[in-house]
Amino acid sequence: MKLVRFGPKGQEKPGVVDAEGKLRDLSSVVADITSEEVRLSKLAGLKAADVAALPVVEGDVRYGVPVKNIGKIIAVGLNYADHAAESNLPVPPEPIFFTKAITSLCGANDDVMKPRDATKMDWEVELGIIIGKTCRYVEESEALNHVAGYVLVNDVSERAFQKERGTQWVKGKGCDTFCPTGPWLVTADEVGNPQELDMFLDVNGVRMQTGNTRTMIFPVAEAIAYISRFITLQPGDLVITGTPPGVGEGKKPDPIYLNVGDNMHLGVSKLGEQRQTVVAFSLEDQEIIG
Amino acid sequence: MKLVRFGPKGQEKPGVVDAEGKLRDLSSVVADITSEEVRLSKLAGLKAADVAALPVVEGDVRYGVPVKNIGKIIAVGLNYADHAAESNLPVPPEPIFFTKAITSLCGANDDVMKPRDATKMDWEVELGIIIGKTCRYVEESEALNHVAGYVLVNDVSERAFQKERGTQWVKGKGCDTFCPTGPWLVTADEVGNPQELDMFLDVNGVRMQTGNTRTMIFPVAEAIAYISRFITLQPGDLVITGTPPGVGEGKKPDPIYLNVGDNMHLGVSKLGEQRQTVVAFSLEDQEIIG
Repeated sequence: MKLVRFGPKGQEKPGVVDAEGKLRDLSSVVADITSEEVRLSKLAGLKAADVAALPVVEGDVRYGVPVKNIGKIIAVGLNYADHAAESNLPVPPEPIFFTKAITSLCGANDDVMKPRDATKMDWEVELGIIIGKTCRYVEESEALNHVAGYVLVNDVSERAFQKERGTQWVKGKGCDTFCPTGPWLVTADEVGNPQELDMFLDVNGVRMQTGNTRTMIFPVAEAIAYISRFITLQPGDLVITGTPPGVGEGKKPDPIYLNVGDNMHLGVSKLGEQRQTVVAFSLEDQEIIG
Repeated sequence: MKLVRFGPKGQEKPGVVDAEGKLRDLSSVVADITSEEVRLSKLAGLKAADVAALPVVEGDVRYGVPVKNIGKIIAVGLNYADHAAESNLPVPPEPIFFTKAITSLCGANDDVMKPRDATKMDWEVELGIIIGKTCRYVEESEALNHVAGYVLVNDVSERAFQKERGTQWVKGKGCDTFCPTGPWLVTADEVGNPQELDMFLDVNGVRMQTGNTRTMIFPVAEAIAYISRFITLQPGDLVITGTPPGVGEGKKPDPIYLNVGDNMHLGVSKLGEQRQTVVAFSLEDQEIIG
């Protein structure tokens, strides 16, 4: 099942995209798709909905973050063998992870704002996991039974903030609009094996990233099990799993960074696609999020 | 005003501690003290309550985290000049910050759980700030006008997880019960100048940390202004501001780490005190938080 939240910012309604790709309004079944509603025990109820009986939503709509009230975002770094090789970095002996601020979340195709003082803004197509059941010291063999579903994420980053302002990456990872998520939350049963998904990202029509989740160093199950030994994951939490080769900072002969007006287009198979335009930072949305 | 949430885990009620130190039930004024209720525009309503008319709560009570639904926790590292000197580390040219998982929050006097595999568990008494108004590119001169109030925090840390498992500190900062917070949220007007507060922390009755917020390298206003250039702070967010000298890893001739059965006792003037016992990790509370 493909769950979505559609409509203007702050006024999203729950929806489902049916087998023919038609958007249907899920409001009669659930008030909103929240971190509580993606708990596996509740998600089973949503999956039982008679989708064909739901009203079709016509016309273009905005897709918001497919889960409301995401509690935290944990990001695994340097998790693709081919990306590590490209970066001339050793494969980490155990997962590296950091966090992104929940205020960085935005809809799949929302504008991405360039922060004031940003000089090295970059892209990262990633497979995102939405947790469906509390994870504490979860065994790797049990980890996938804690997943509600998967989402496409662009882990937008500012490399100067991330790497030249001290040692902690969070400075360059949590800016507003740095975490476009969606359009769909695709339930785990519909995705099947998360380690055979193709990924791509284009900037201004030029292919920048190509990859497949099969080259992950720490696959989804291992990443969840590992994180759960340090931090408890709860229903609705978002775990993003690293990016394949082709980020801007790794381009030869010179790095390529994003500027105002640039367009990103990215996708992960089964999870849909995103398109974002980079715009100058604006304070106009302040009270919508705040 | 001293706002609290009192009662068993998951069943906390809102309260206020009056000028004589009596706990009074605030349930008739507000359903709970949430991140939305500490927004400055709403907090003014709570402050107008006729405290003397509220029912007194007798007997011993548990104090929960004084704000429900804290959205994020940002922690400033190495922020005391005397602590930097003690550690033989240079004063950072700009603030270092990292995050703690919101699942690390617990009540002021709750047991602190030692994670499985932990070997270097440590303490850090800190001044915490609860944000009352959205902060994006806030000027330092305006920053204190965005503060709802202050809280006492123990920034419990596992140094091996933090520093020996890769570069990102979050691994050793976000374990369950690693962020005892409270007992009170003391509103900013009652605290006055946040840069003249005494701090202490004892372990098993031995004084370990002594300090005063006047030796902060980046004072409260500067820290808020700085963070808001990278990450948007929202009402209810918790910013913790670093620790004075005397953490366990800095003890001479050898570091001192926490073990099961150890007792911590800490305080910041005007913000109350906390007492925690270190216990072995247990999965029993899993569904309470999860």
